[in-house]
Amino acid sequence: MAPKSTAEASMEALYRIFTVPEAPDSTLGKIEKHLSENLEGFLSSHIVTQERPLHEIERDFAYSDIPEQPEFVSDHTDKLLKKLVAQSVHTASPRFIGHMTSALPYFLLPLAKLMVGLNQNLVKIETSKAFTPMERQTLGMMHHLVYGEQPAFYERWMHNADHSLGAFCSGGTIANISALWVARNNLLAPRDDFAGVAAEGLAAGLSAYGYKRLVVLVSERGHYSLSKAADVLGIGRKNFVSVPADENNRIKLDALREIAAQVTAEGGRVMAIVGIAGTTETGHIDPLREMAAVAKEYAAHFHVDAAWGGATLMSSTYRKLLDGIELADSLTIDAHKQMYVPMGAGMVLFKDPALVNAIEHHAEYVIRRGSKDLGSHTMEGSRPGMAMLVYSALHVMGRTGYELLIDTGIERAKKFATMIEQQDDFEVISYPELCLLTYRYVPSEIKAALVNATAEQVAAVTPHLNILTRFIQKTQRENGRSFVSRTKLNPVKYHREGTLVFRTVLANPLTTAEMLAEIIAEQREIAASAPSLRQHILDAAKRCGLTA
Amino acid sequence: MAPKSTAEASMEALYRIFTVPEAPDSTLGKIEKHLSENLEGFLSSHIVTQERPLHEIERDFAYSDIPEQPEFVSDHTDKLLKKLVAQSVHTASPRFIGHMTSALPYFLLPLAKLMVGLNQNLVKIETSKAFTPMERQTLGMMHHLVYGEQPAFYERWMHNADHSLGAFCSGGTIANISALWVARNNLLAPRDDFAGVAAEGLAAGLSAYGYKRLVVLVSERGHYSLSKAADVLGIGRKNFVSVPADENNRIKLDALREIAAQVTAEGGRVMAIVGIAGTTETGHIDPLREMAAVAKEYAAHFHVDAAWGGATLMSSTYRKLLDGIELADSLTIDAHKQMYVPMGAGMVLFKDPALVNAIEHHAEYVIRRGSKDLGSHTMEGSRPGMAMLVYSALHVMGRTGYELLIDTGIERAKKFATMIEQQDDFEVISYPELCLLTYRYVPSEIKAALVNATAEQVAAVTPHLNILTRFIQKTQRENGRSFVSRTKLNPVKYHREGTLVFRTVLANPLTTAEMLAEIIAEQREIAASAPSLRQHILDAAKRCGLTA
Repeated sequence: MAPKSTAEASMEALYRIFTVPEAPDSTLGKIEKHLSENLEGFLSSHIVTQERPLHEIERDFAYSDIPEQPEFVSDHTDKLLKKLVAQSVHTASPRFIGHMTSALPYFLLPLAKLMVGLNQNLVKIETSKAFTPMERQTLGMMHHLVYGEQPAFYERWMHNADHSLGAFCSGGTIANISALWVARNNLLAPRDDFAGVAAEGLAAGLSAYGYKRLVVLVSERGHYSLSKAADVLGIGRKNFVSVPADENNRIKLDALREIAAQVTAEGGRVMAIVGIAGTTETGHIDPLREMAAVAKEYAAHFHVDAAWGGATLMSSTYRKLLDGIELADSLTIDAHKQMYVPMGAGMVLFKDPALVNAIEHHAEYVIRRGSKDLGSHTMEGSRPGMAMLVYSALHVMGRTGYELLIDTGIERAKKFATMIEQQDDFEVISYPELCLLTYRYVPSEIKAALVNATAEQVAAVTPHLNILTRFIQKTQRENGRSFVSRTKLNPVKYHREGTLVFRTVLANPLTTAEMLAEIIAEQREIAASAPSLRQHILDAAKRCGLTA
Repeated sequence: MAPKSTAEASMEALYRIFTVPEAPDSTLGKIEKHLSENLEGFLSSHIVTQERPLHEIERDFAYSDIPEQPEFVSDHTDKLLKKLVAQSVHTASPRFIGHMTSALPYFLLPLAKLMVGLNQNLVKIETSKAFTPMERQTLGMMHHLVYGEQPAFYERWMHNADHSLGAFCSGGTIANISALWVARNNLLAPRDDFAGVAAEGLAAGLSAYGYKRLVVLVSERGHYSLSKAADVLGIGRKNFVSVPADENNRIKLDALREIAAQVTAEGGRVMAIVGIAGTTETGHIDPLREMAAVAKEYAAHFHVDAAWGGATLMSSTYRKLLDGIELADSLTIDAHKQMYVPMGAGMVLFKDPALVNAIEHHAEYVIRRGSKDLGSHTMEGSRPGMAMLVYSALHVMGRTGYELLIDTGIERAKKFATMIEQQDDFEVISYPELCLLTYRYVPSEIKAALVNATAEQVAAVTPHLNILTRFIQKTQRENGRSFVSRTKLNPVKYHREGTLVFRTVLANPLTTAEMLAEIIAEQREIAASAPSLRQHILDAAKRCGLTA
């Protein structure tokens, strides 16, 4: 749209952007063509590899005035390519194995454009019509994957106005908050003279039920969104109690039982126990069946955060790792993680479709009583039709397609673990249960000695190892050829000393063994480029008697 | 992807969907071309106008099993077109004037595809890089639009790691919840022996501060998401107190002052006062400046829900309607409403960039302390790069482009009101302040008489008028040529009797006066097709003495 001199001309120009399509040979037209014909090529050629420092990038996004005059679409697009796209992250790269964002199947791109063009709003039937039953069915299929109820169950509940098998939402955080909101409202439900926590608030609820506090129990490996949920819901982060994990990053059941008993004995109420099916940092799965039994004992809501690992249920081989998940009262799954759908496709599922009645709400102009408007049981209001992308992905890939992706991901991670073990200067810190593993670089001179190190010796060398790990990870990211993330773990074998590790997620089907070997080689090279950091480690090892 | 017989073939087929683009002459390729060349044509030709009953549509979305075998993309797309797209809602139609979803500018479609292809995750720099400063700048521009701080302010805070001018989120509901979350946590901040509500929970917070209850005050025209927020945050819907509105749907200031005083006298604490800049049902704007003064008097957080009306700030002519908005401590704006961006672009803004410290959170592998990761101050976790579409829309349309859209929308609504007034069988119920108005059909025989009707007479005829209004609205929707929504208001001129009305939002730049005349003509025709409903009204009017 070009700046014009008169109001009429401006109006005409404005109408044009709503009525006249972008020409195929326009800048945007060419981008679209490139995206459609060769997404990886587009991303590789437009995203620069060498990282610019953030403070430099910020200079391109410095003014705070909304531009007064319109800009030609082509001019704007050129700038967008140079300033924004060039400095974005190539999350689809098979060498970008640091986070849970992977390559996307091609067919989802045009479908996403279709979804945007249709611009449905899923809060109500009037702005979504068939998208509402489509979303309900998609939730039904995911519910069936987890809970495997009989056909009659789905016939009865899937399209029921007053019930809900779950909800789509923007992501796992909203899903987790929604699940715990439902748990809180069902625990402090209306009774006698008390109108329920939804109406009267949390303080009145605790007092009506005679509880000193509500407590949520989760392993120390739980996602930070869970403590955020405790804050949002008024429960308080202190009442979100972290239970120690064992050497395999799974919740310690004896500790769980002990804490639950203690909370109860002191007048608190265990509101919910949260199991993790695929921890964000190590990919491990809690003993769900046993946790469900503890939850039952305390009449607590059992929520499973399967945001990342839930897709594993589609694998006949690995589904058993999530044994007991069908006992969850509620469940979080992110389709934008291991279901290969673009960002923004979270889901919460409820075993009992009546559970959501505790958060039901209505208005006069939408989500009226008795309507099938999805908005009456969701935390969000207006929402896009992302469910369509999940629906299509489930159909085009099928269960067996997902199974292949999941299985090869886990096998890839296991092979990578073996590859790391074969190096004399790298060590695996957490082995893959799903397709996630952590490791680090350790100078070969001390690798063997570390196995039998005392707590004091570990404490002496670890801070120096951590500095090197951070240096390698940041340098590799800045080099731009590949990316692993990093996190801090407290490995049992290292006396729970805070240990920085490389964190890798091997979900991208295009990641090859050669690429993984290159990543290790580059990390070794970076380590060699910092001889003083390395020397500090060796000196510390000598000083504490770890090495002679 | 085609079903194959061996595992290798399946794997190969699976790789293909990640590596081989859709051919231009494939079903999806053709859809894309059609979307790009003629969006309106695509929507008009693929979405059927005649509405199928929902229970019939549901039959197409009935099975609950995830399909076992993959499906060819082309086959799946064909089905999608027939079952889903055909039965979706043509929200971009200039005759779809019932909700806040309008036509989209063409350039946003390819940009949305680019955004999806880049698949950035805005929770952290590592998965979004330049998208993070871009989002911060977009929030800065919106902040400047509302608060108009000096350049030094934005230089200091816009890209600051520990502060935030606001947050993008999926929509206005999350924005409203976020704002009230911030308000709650700042009110019950840490002090003395109390670690703050975020840590200790709401019951402990009330007790530490000696408040019997927290109260949120908003006009009866407030959006339902606000009472949902009161539920989620543990405040309780009963403590979300509805203040009466005047005949122009604006909060009654004397009632607000009275309730605030009473709540305080009874030991409650006014946590927040919420002003509305564009009510969802009538489009009216509260007296923001005066409300801010009341909020100040009670040291309450002043939030303004400008989800719909906020874009009006870009109009030099109508900006003054939102006078006092710059006094808001926080503000909600939805870019997917009057900023013409696709669904999923909500924003919350904070006047004071330090306010968000009350909801700050961190983790070991992302949003570490001191990082510029956006996720440390947002309710959501992983989020798509929707900010890019807002950024581009602001640049391509410019402030003056938006001004034109806003101004012509309001003028269109005023002309429509005049058109309705000229009919002898329609009446305006709420006049447009922004581009939203409500009206209804009233048989000409009683229209004039209603002006001076007693409360009893209004009570006698209104239920019958409501039945006719509902019938017209539903029939018109089912006919599929055009769409207005309906809601229930309590007009002062009708003694606050619950009155069903047609609700129209005139934001689509492609809506013409001819189309509006046709909508009225069709409604009159539908009314005439139900002579018995009409007769019931006339009979009731006669019985109660309204007509002779």
